[in-house]
Amino acid sequence: LRQGSPEVIFGENKTPEQLLTIVSAMTGRQRNILVTRLDEEKGGLLVSRWPEGDYDPLARTFCLQLSPLPDLHRGPLLIACAGTSDLPVAREAMVTARMFGIEVEELTDVGVAGIHRLLAETDPLSRAAAIIVVAGMEGALPSVVGGLVAVPVIAVPTSVGYGAAFGGVAALLGMLNSCAGGVTVVNIDNGFGAAFAAARILRRQPA
Amino acid sequence: LRQGSPEVIFGENKTPEQLLTIVSAMTGRQRNILVTRLDEEKGGLLVSRWPEGDYDPLARTFCLQLSPLPDLHRGPLLIACAGTSDLPVAREAMVTARMFGIEVEELTDVGVAGIHRLLAETDPLSRAAAIIVVAGMEGALPSVVGGLVAVPVIAVPTSVGYGAAFGGVAALLGMLNSCAGGVTVVNIDNGFGAAFAAARILRRQPA
Amino acid sequence: LRQGSPEVIFGENKTPEQLLTIVSAMTGRQRNILVTRLDEEKGGLLVSRWPEGDYDPLARTFCLQLSPLPDLHRGPLLIACAGTSDLPVAREAMVTARMFGIEVEELTDVGVAGIHRLLAETDPLSRAAAIIVVAGMEGALPSVVGGLVAVPVIAVPTSVGYGAAFGGVAALLGMLNSCAGGVTVVNIDNGFGAAFAAARILRRQPA
Amino acid sequence: LRQGSPEVIFGENKTPEQLLTIVSAMTGRQRNILVTRLDEEKGGLLVSRWPEGDYDPLARTFCLQLSPLPDLHRGPLLIACAGTSDLPVAREAMVTARMFGIEVEELTDVGVAGIHRLLAETDPLSRAAAIIVVAGMEGALPSVVGGLVAVPVIAVPTSVGYGAAFGGVAALLGMLNSCAGGVTVVNIDNGFGAAFAAARILRRQPA
Amino acid sequence: LRQGSPEVIFGENKTPEQLLTIVSAMTGRQRNILVTRLDEEKGGLLVSRWPEGDYDPLARTFCLQLSPLPDLHRGPLLIACAGTSDLPVAREAMVTARMFGIEVEELTDVGVAGIHRLLAETDPLSRAAAIIVVAGMEGALPSVVGGLVAVPVIAVPTSVGYGAAFGGVAALLGMLNSCAGGVTVVNIDNGFGAAFAAARILRRQPA
Amino acid sequence: LRQGSPEVIFGENKTPEQLLTIVSAMTGRQRNILVTRLDEEKGGLLVSRWPEGDYDPLARTFCLQLSPLPDLHRGPLLIACAGTSDLPVAREAMVTARMFGIEVEELTDVGVAGIHRLLAETDPLSRAAAIIVVAGMEGALPSVVGGLVAVPVIAVPTSVGYGAAFGGVAALLGMLNSCAGGVTVVNIDNGFGAAFAAARILRRQPA
Amino acid sequence: LRQGSPEVIFGENKTPEQLLTIVSAMTGRQRNILVTRLDEEKGGLLVSRWPEGDYDPLARTFCLQLSPLPDLHRGPLLIACAGTSDLPVAREAMVTARMFGIEVEELTDVGVAGIHRLLAETDPLSRAAAIIVVAGMEGALPSVVGGLVAVPVIAVPTSVGYGAAFGGVAALLGMLNSCAGGVTVVNIDNGFGAAFAAARILRRQPA
Amino acid sequence: LRQGSPEVIFGENKTPEQLLTIVSAMTGRQRNILVTRLDEEKGGLLVSRWPEGDYDPLARTFCLQLSPLPDLHRGPLLIACAGTSDLPVAREAMVTARMFGIEVEELTDVGVAGIHRLLAETDPLSRAAAIIVVAGMEGALPSVVGGLVAVPVIAVPTSVGYGAAFGGVAALLGMLNSCAGGVTVVNIDNGFGAAFAAARILRRQPA
Ligand SMILES: Nc1ncnc2c1ncn2[C@@H]1O[C@H](COP(=O)(O)O)[C@@H](O)[C@H]1O
Ligand SMILES: Nc1ncnc2c1ncn2[C@@H]1O[C@H](COP(=O)(O)O)[C@@H](O)[C@H]1O
Ligand SMILES: Nc1ncnc2c1ncn2[C@@H]1O[C@H](COP(=O)(O)O)[C@@H](O)[C@H]1O
Ligand SMILES: Nc1ncnc2c1ncn2[C@@H]1O[C@H](COP(=O)(O)O)[C@@H](O)[C@H]1O
Ligand SMILES: [Mg+2]
Ligand SMILES: [Mg+2]
Ligand SMILES: [Mg+2]
Ligand SMILES: [Mg+2]
Ligand SMILES: [Mg+2]
Ligand SMILES: [Mg+2]
Ligand SMILES: [Mg+2]
Ligand SMILES: [Mg+2]
Repeated sequence: LRQGSPEVIFGENKTPEQLLTIVSAMTGRQRNILVTRLDEEKGGLLVSRWPEGDYDPLARTFCLQLSPLPDLHRGPLLIACAGTSDLPVAREAMVTARMFGIEVEELTDVGVAGIHRLLAETDPLSRAAAIIVVAGMEGALPSVVGGLVAVPVIAVPTSVGYGAAFGGVAALLGMLNSCAGGVTVVNIDNGFGAAFAAARILRRQPA
Repeated sequence: LRQGSPEVIFGENKTPEQLLTIVSAMTGRQRNILVTRLDEEKGGLLVSRWPEGDYDPLARTFCLQLSPLPDLHRGPLLIACAGTSDLPVAREAMVTARMFGIEVEELTDVGVAGIHRLLAETDPLSRAAAIIVVAGMEGALPSVVGGLVAVPVIAVPTSVGYGAAFGGVAALLGMLNSCAGGVTVVNIDNGFGAAFAAARILRRQPA
Repeated sequence: LRQGSPEVIFGENKTPEQLLTIVSAMTGRQRNILVTRLDEEKGGLLVSRWPEGDYDPLARTFCLQLSPLPDLHRGPLLIACAGTSDLPVAREAMVTARMFGIEVEELTDVGVAGIHRLLAETDPLSRAAAIIVVAGMEGALPSVVGGLVAVPVIAVPTSVGYGAAFGGVAALLGMLNSCAGGVTVVNIDNGFGAAFAAARILRRQPA
Repeated sequence: LRQGSPEVIFGENKTPEQLLTIVSAMTGRQRNILVTRLDEEKGGLLVSRWPEGDYDPLARTFCLQLSPLPDLHRGPLLIACAGTSDLPVAREAMVTARMFGIEVEELTDVGVAGIHRLLAETDPLSRAAAIIVVAGMEGALPSVVGGLVAVPVIAVPTSVGYGAAFGGVAALLGMLNSCAGGVTVVNIDNGFGAAFAAARILRRQPA
Repeated sequence: LRQGSPEVIFGENKTPEQLLTIVSAMTGRQRNILVTRLDEEKGGLLVSRWPEGDYDPLARTFCLQLSPLPDLHRGPLLIACAGTSDLPVAREAMVTARMFGIEVEELTDVGVAGIHRLLAETDPLSRAAAIIVVAGMEGALPSVVGGLVAVPVIAVPTSVGYGAAFGGVAALLGMLNSCAGGVTVVNIDNGFGAAFAAARILRRQPA
Repeated sequence: LRQGSPEVIFGENKTPEQLLTIVSAMTGRQRNILVTRLDEEKGGLLVSRWPEGDYDPLARTFCLQLSPLPDLHRGPLLIACAGTSDLPVAREAMVTARMFGIEVEELTDVGVAGIHRLLAETDPLSRAAAIIVVAGMEGALPSVVGGLVAVPVIAVPTSVGYGAAFGGVAALLGMLNSCAGGVTVVNIDNGFGAAFAAARILRRQPA
Repeated sequence: LRQGSPEVIFGENKTPEQLLTIVSAMTGRQRNILVTRLDEEKGGLLVSRWPEGDYDPLARTFCLQLSPLPDLHRGPLLIACAGTSDLPVAREAMVTARMFGIEVEELTDVGVAGIHRLLAETDPLSRAAAIIVVAGMEGALPSVVGGLVAVPVIAVPTSVGYGAAFGGVAALLGMLNSCAGGVTVVNIDNGFGAAFAAARILRRQPA
Repeated sequence: LRQGSPEVIFGENKTPEQLLTIVSAMTGRQRNILVTRLDEEKGGLLVSRWPEGDYDPLARTFCLQLSPLPDLHRGPLLIACAGTSDLPVAREAMVTARMFGIEVEELTDVGVAGIHRLLAETDPLSRAAAIIVVAGMEGALPSVVGGLVAVPVIAVPTSVGYGAAFGGVAALLGMLNSCAGGVTVVNIDNGFGAAFAAARILRRQPA
């Protein structure tokens, strides 16, 4: 994974100054740089300093591509998303996956309360080499997807919801208890981690 | 609800002697009697004392019908159940509903990991006047059912599962956060309560 | 439920721009529109764009009626509310129910610590075809109401309270463990869901 | 409290031998002895050794009265109890209170789902100098009682219930969030502690 | 409790307008008025409208005395407080108790990590007719006090602390599990409730 | 995954009779059969009925191979395990993986408190096409392994531990928060699920 | 720590056969052996195989001394214990400490509800080079001890208690939030870990 | 500990005025003063009043040295820190330790996902007389360190992380369940407490 993978910075708790210092230091190494969890202010700062970089306000990421993206990966990664409120997490996964050189397809608004919308999407489902499923509230989508496909399914619970959603705990528990076999789970809102796991899976190994 | 409804005894914490005493006292009132949460020993004891009664070892219920069942209810109640381990709770709901004079249909093994099994059951789903959905683990089935039908959906989480299922908490939270609108929920393993709620709903009201 | 039911938008996590776009798109379909969880700023924006719409600051809802309300429902729905702090949730339920064409009555400030206030309300209680009970803190009101009436009782816990109320968890648990049979529960503060459940129940079914 | 109060032993984790040793040592001091949380085997052992003692299998207590009970207390203590499953805890409170020389009255099966049973009991309620309210499940009874009387109300949650009752947590939270002012709470199933608190309250103080 | 007790308003979730309306309506009844949980802005508003009233910024209370305080109570109430951060809750209890006509003494900064400070206070401890103990963090003070005195001890956990204090849960659990017999507990930060409970206890009953 | 994958039965809540019935019915289909979570009694029963089957008392599994194992998988799967108490879960994973036709290597007793034991195992670590890491208590092993290799890492928390291990919750949370990127997690003690996920990953896809 | 420290085996989840095998293998190395968490049956088995070993039924430990205990430690370790139910954990700590060559003193039944018992023990408190404090229920003892002494204080919460003690969680939280500075904490019931920590502290370091 | 130790003020909940008053009062005693948990505004205020004092914005501490630091301590204290987000807590520990006269060394960015960084630091690890390990997320670092050294290891969980980190709970549980023996733990983010514990340990005792 080492070669071709980006340097990643978790932007959440860092001050603007810290971010500038860290990114500056990294640019010397000529590896691609991904900064996550950036609000618009921090994102704007980075873009004004490195205009060739790309800030995505939905994903809250900043990408600075300093060398070609690797092309080591098998097949497309499908990122499926239950509701529109889950989009920021899905987008963080998408941006991250692309920095790993993975081809990404997206499927949005295919929540389980309107199951026919998901079932209509036979093409993207059958094409995918792996699937990231992003869902909040009851987090049921990975169970349905896991029952439809044989490829790896990585479930990302989101903090979308209120009351007994407990900031994503309901979705997390739902996914850990998925009745579809072999669904794996990452932390709440961890789109980055899901894409990283996909990169581990889709990497074309020697042999 | 008063007229036509059974007397109900919660059998779990009661000694065999207490059960005999309470049921004996009740038989005088000529109302139908339902005892729930009875292990085989207590069930056998009640049957040996009242051979006309009916002990269901799966539902863990004892029914003693002393007067005709009421016929006050509209339409069939569908009880749908995700996995075979959820059957005891579904059966408690079924036995209870019948004591309220409700016609019951059953659908088993229609968990969301094999969504086509559920979707194939268009007839029972469209016929139902109300649906009780029983599911453990991630408790996702009510969301799918709630998206398919317009009738009342009562979700019963079960304690089926292990680890992060936390004795039914994962299913309970999933159901409380259902992205299908208007799904209501009862306590973990409370098949009795779900059927009671159905009786409140299906009762033919004056007017 | 499909015909006659409103389109519903969950306003909480949406930006003003997103809301304008979504509502605009929907107006084309000539179905009634309900937006929930709107603060005053977003509500004002929608009203200034669609002055014929109605923003309710207590319910935090915006209603845009583009076609006649359906009249498919049996009997009045009673919405009973323990304390004045529970009113926003009760009002969200009321607004939602009305968008489903349901006739609503209200009962406020009938908390269990002054039980005689509730018991004095025999008329609305006996008239109701179904009851939504909204309560925070210990969430005890549904148990008392459930013992008084035979119609469906839908309990809505609210996040009212502090300390060991845990944002509505105490009320939620109280309602799930109601000693009154057949009380069903929705998520914390989910007035919308309770009214939706009532619409499922009160819908006049064919036959 | 010191003079007149019993010596108390928590029997739960103690072996039969430890109990015999401890009680023996205490008998020398001529103070009354109360042992709580005794199963029938341990209770039988103590009775066979001290036949003048009294084992109560419901309360799971053993009392050995070696000196006259104190008579220091004002007015009767009412112990009210929601359901029959709560009786063991109520009885532990009653036995304890009597060892403190307090006059006790009992009210059973006055749960909030049948509120008229409680409201019918105006005499014991108005007579009481203090009230212990024992309830499991949603633990709502203390709120209703607290709204009816001006004397001290001590709430005891019990572990009665299943699923989301969480071994008494639902009742505990309900009581801590009581909307009736000035209700105080003790630990789950702590009938002993409630009676001890009543003794602190009802003790006739010098002056 | 009815006669002589104040009208109480929970100020937290109410808007300034609501507070003005409610207090205005109440002044007509000539009973004393207590408003709790008021920030400085709301407090200032009430004082500017009723200059004869008294806003306490530490207790966050507003008192409006319209009739003489009752004098029905036995002995002084001691309010003991572990650390300086617990003072707002202790002060809420003090203000409330005074509105019930109870004489109050205070003891501050007597936390258990400097146990000799508490033990030096023999006079206030022995004089008290009842004691409210306010403590955050590990909430250990009520256990020590409960072992020193025979009068009623009401424990108030506070949300003081961080990390594993969990907003007062650690203190709450500590107090519920006090190894001193007969300590009772109210909700986290509920100084008002503790004083109300003291009023129930200290009220001079007929006879 | 469909072709070549075993039929799997969750044995935990099933009676011996149910197991006999289900397995009998399945044998007709000529697919391989895997039964998990079997105590020795149930395991013995299945072996006495199908002596060609294989009961593993450590894994608590029963395997009945009725057709050749598939050979569709890339590279070896390494199953690494922190302590000896984690072995049953690791073994369940191993048995399951073998039923999917996956070649398995094992590494035991490489917990993080003796980090040099793990670091010495460079060969199995570098050879693995994917790694399942099984650990209880603080569940730290996946973080270290995830930092050492680029292949997929599936973490399985176990219920090993006591006190604040909370039946595997501490390990589960540790794994969900792994500071090594792209580690995915399955339910507590879910060795089966981890191996199923590995089968999804290691399946040789068309192209 | 390596030289002079015992080999330690966690006996809880191991079968008698496993224990015999492991201990046998270890005896070859001539280091002292400590097995913890042994019930009487397993303990008896080990004693019958190695009669020179010592099984302590209270501590649930088995010690097999094969070489002289190290004498590397400074000063006595005091193990103070709140109630008699905490004794097994205190004893586990004591046995462990002795296997590390540490001189141990004991103080029992010095719970905070009878604070004068603790304060009377000035000698052992002032003599100690370090103190282990064992307490269940509210776990308050370490705060008081930590305020009295300047030496290291290691707090061990025990699972003693019921209801809201939550198997030691209340004591654990109390200790983590101790208002006495510099108190450190180990896992619930982890007497072994506390003694191990004491050994790290009391070891006479080079220089 | 008394002589030579600083006076410590917990700045979090105190107003600027309270801080000025308290510090002023203390300066009279000529002991060194440490104020913790100060934001930049409060810190600036203290510095402008006592320019000889030192505000550290990372540690959020203010130190006012009025007498020489004690020199009572043995060996250097190593403070090791998993990630850069943990630095504020590590720095609070460092500042505190220095006020106790302890010599401190630091090791940063040695998280377990890059284990070789830690293993490369043999010198500071072997030199340390005690080690404070600060880590968030899965909190695994103390287990690795505890396995490498024989000196006391004090683990400080931090609130760094998101989702299932639960504000430091994941790290706290990880540390309490450390499979390295004798690791002790303080509250989440309690750098102060860890340094205080180190001072208890490293104090040169009489004898
Ligand atoms: N399985 C059950 N789950 C929940 N509540 C029940 C169940 N069975 C009986 N009940 C309720 O328990 C009440 C009787 O309780 P008891 O008097 O303890 O037998 C009945 O009126 C029912 O409302
Ligand atoms: N207040 C509410 N509480 C729960 N669900 C709601 C609420 N308002 C809207 N919804 C649901 O959210 C869906 C719309 O979500 P969205 O597409 O994000 O606007 C609707 O179909 C409703 O089912
Ligand atoms: N040990 C296990 N842990 C989790 N899921 C399992 C386990 N064993 C079997 N399963 C799942 O349970 C399903 C069978 O459930 P059942 O029909 O109840 O036997 C299988 O298809 C598996 O997906
Ligand atoms: N950052 C901190 N974390 C935990 N406890 C602290 C901290 N800073 C100060 N303390 C403790 O708080 C006490 C002072 O509290 P106070 O009187 O409220 O300022 C000191 O004696 C310390 O024991
Ligand atoms: Mg979802
Ligand atoms: Mg399910
Ligand atoms: Mg309420
Ligand atoms: Mg109750
Ligand atoms: Mg405190
Ligand atoms: Mg481990
Ligand atoms: Mg204790
Ligand atoms: Mg970490």
